[in-house]
Amino acid sequence: LIFSGKKQVSAYLCYMDTDWSGLHARIGLLGGGQLGRMIIQKAIDWDLDIHVLDPDSQAPCFDLCAHFTVGSLNDFHTVLAFGEDKDILTVEMENVNIEALEELEKKGVRIYPQPRVLKTIRDKGLQKEFYRLHGIPTAPFKLFNSIDVQDIAQHLPCVQKLRTGGYDGKGVQILRTEADLERAFSEPSVVEEWIPFEKEISVIVSRNVKGENSVYPAVECEFNPEANLVEFLFSPAEIKPEIEKKAQDIALGIIDDLQMVGLLAVEFFLTKDQELLVNEIAPRPHNSGHHTIECNATSQFEQFLRAILNLPFGDTRTTHTGAMINLLGAEGQEGDVQYVGLENLLSVDGVYPHIYGKRKTKPYRKMGHITLTADSLNELKSKAEKIKNMISVQGKTN
Amino acid sequence: LIFSGKKQVSAYLCYMDTDWSGLHARIGLLGGGQLGRMIIQKAIDWDLDIHVLDPDSQAPCFDLCAHFTVGSLNDFHTVLAFGEDKDILTVEMENVNIEALEELEKKGVRIYPQPRVLKTIRDKGLQKEFYRLHGIPTAPFKLFNSIDVQDIAQHLPCVQKLRTGGYDGKGVQILRTEADLERAFSEPSVVEEWIPFEKEISVIVSRNVKGENSVYPAVECEFNPEANLVEFLFSPAEIKPEIEKKAQDIALGIIDDLQMVGLLAVEFFLTKDQELLVNEIAPRPHNSGHHTIECNATSQFEQFLRAILNLPFGDTRTTHTGAMINLLGAEGQEGDVQYVGLENLLSVDGVYPHIYGKRKTKPYRKMGHITLTADSLNELKSKAEKIKNMISVQGKTN
Repeated sequence: LIFSGKKQVSAYLCYMDTDWSGLHARIGLLGGGQLGRMIIQKAIDWDLDIHVLDPDSQAPCFDLCAHFTVGSLNDFHTVLAFGEDKDILTVEMENVNIEALEELEKKGVRIYPQPRVLKTIRDKGLQKEFYRLHGIPTAPFKLFNSIDVQDIAQHLPCVQKLRTGGYDGKGVQILRTEADLERAFSEPSVVEEWIPFEKEISVIVSRNVKGENSVYPAVECEFNPEANLVEFLFSPAEIKPEIEKKAQDIALGIIDDLQMVGLLAVEFFLTKDQELLVNEIAPRPHNSGHHTIECNATSQFEQFLRAILNLPFGDTRTTHTGAMINLLGAEGQEGDVQYVGLENLLSVDGVYPHIYGKRKTKPYRKMGHITLTADSLNELKSKAEKIKNMISVQGKTN
Repeated sequence: LIFSGKKQVSAYLCYMDTDWSGLHARIGLLGGGQLGRMIIQKAIDWDLDIHVLDPDSQAPCFDLCAHFTVGSLNDFHTVLAFGEDKDILTVEMENVNIEALEELEKKGVRIYPQPRVLKTIRDKGLQKEFYRLHGIPTAPFKLFNSIDVQDIAQHLPCVQKLRTGGYDGKGVQILRTEADLERAFSEPSVVEEWIPFEKEISVIVSRNVKGENSVYPAVECEFNPEANLVEFLFSPAEIKPEIEKKAQDIALGIIDDLQMVGLLAVEFFLTKDQELLVNEIAPRPHNSGHHTIECNATSQFEQFLRAILNLPFGDTRTTHTGAMINLLGAEGQEGDVQYVGLENLLSVDGVYPHIYGKRKTKPYRKMGHITLTADSLNELKSKAEKIKNMISVQGKTN
């Protein structure tokens, strides 16, 4: 465990120069996917100097950054070499070589979010231990190093999550009956109580080097049960103000407990008896904040930049009622991507497609998203269904 | 004259395939300045394939486009070679080699706005003749091929504008007294009656290949008299609804008379007796539309793309009361640019700086702009003054 109490955590921070501002910094970004792309799209406004490292020269960031290095995010020497001449290093994914980041941190490179935060969050076991240590409400859980069918059987129905390496809905499964145990993961995992929740909500918080923080209004997520991915998001969430306040306080508490610099998405289950349980956290801009580009005074991408550059935070207020639909690769479709219906979509008012520029599609791959605005949540809900059926992400094999 | 009546104009359009859509087109952009930069920033959302031609490899677009060609915009062969493998060519400035565009048009490249439109607009003499021919209200004028002091003297006070080559407030001067005639331009010019206007307003319209059009709400511009550049812009304009309607109808009339494909900014004088006179037009995204990024449901850059790609238009509705301040290079300052005060600016809510990424500043050079939002125009007016004084664009000579 990285954390064994609050006092120890603070010790990591004593060297920090809180007056520093990173507007003129040389910024290294690990990962060149869609999150990086939307970060860069915002960074253009401030003419920031962003350098990207990604293994794929066809990554979504490639065409729109001045400095792109092709290389592995998991290789110690590659990450070290990439980071050495940067003032700040940041990530758009957790799955990077953290040992190299720790080495760079020692050399004086600012790593935001900090390597110790990435270490805690990317291992779902450590994440759960952290909640337990800090009294953060979460579903009861048990850690497994390998499969122990007899033990797991006592906890059915349960959710099994790989401790590391899962992403975009992969590495997570519900085990309902003893028959399901046949497909239980044998790698180190977290097994947690299955929560029959009423809603899933998400709150995004951020914190800069000075320790100032900021929180967004809560949003509501509807998952696609097959892909285990957010299918629709609605903002604001239809929950009682006191529930929203409580979720915001928990989220702010987590980023403060982590003493993290950066942006943190906190996903909650809201149970039928109105209890909030933290499901997962992500230390970066998040799918549940994409609507903020059009629907809030400050987007999550701008707020993320403000956090890591140690700038004051922008206004998080909701300016438009909005929905977000993920554009996932259609089932059974693979190859060169085609967005069938995109032109028709553009004839509807308040529709903002974001195409990530990935060349190849495959089933359930995140290829883009669409933000919708309308005057009311009711209007949005029917609009979202209609829009979703107007577009399909298809593939063409050559 | 390019135009001698409406019938002849329509003849240019008969070959157009109005069902075509350009979402997957190879797009060439002549000019890589701030307008191109903001066009590309929006184009990222639709993953458009934009190729830029500009003589300066340090131009604002350089870092953020996949394909940048360094070359002269005024050289016939350079423009021809650049355009030959494109599906659409467009411009972010009027001062380009139009003969090459005409040649490319004959070869089947779609040039939007059309070369004949660029020809009419970039020559302020032809522009004025066009207004006269189409009954568009404008200040009385006379064309001069060279200087004729005796003749001009009869028209004092007047405004003299170079027919071609003026930009960003250059090539325009007010001649009040006979003494001013000493500095009269000797090149071909338009001399027009000096209009003691009450306000300057601007309306942006757009038109696609199908002939569908769209119009933005009117905005109000306050000019810096020294630089003859927009200093503050306020949206919406504080004018009577019937005046706004009239301005919108005139602007729509102009783009229809031109049968232009693209986006057109129409600047008006509103005289003390509430008469509207067209001052100038620009066939591209315009300084008086920058606020639309934050303040309207669809930005002028998106609307421009919709026009040239023959897509249906987006909603132009004002969603936020806003102001725009141009960030001009400070007087007496030259060299490597520094934005003094930018960090402080970011501590104020509803402030959106856009830095264009130009490396060198000089007095009155357009280096960026700031959009402000607030709940009312009154609040905005005091906020605009305050914000303007918080930031200064300075230079550092090495």
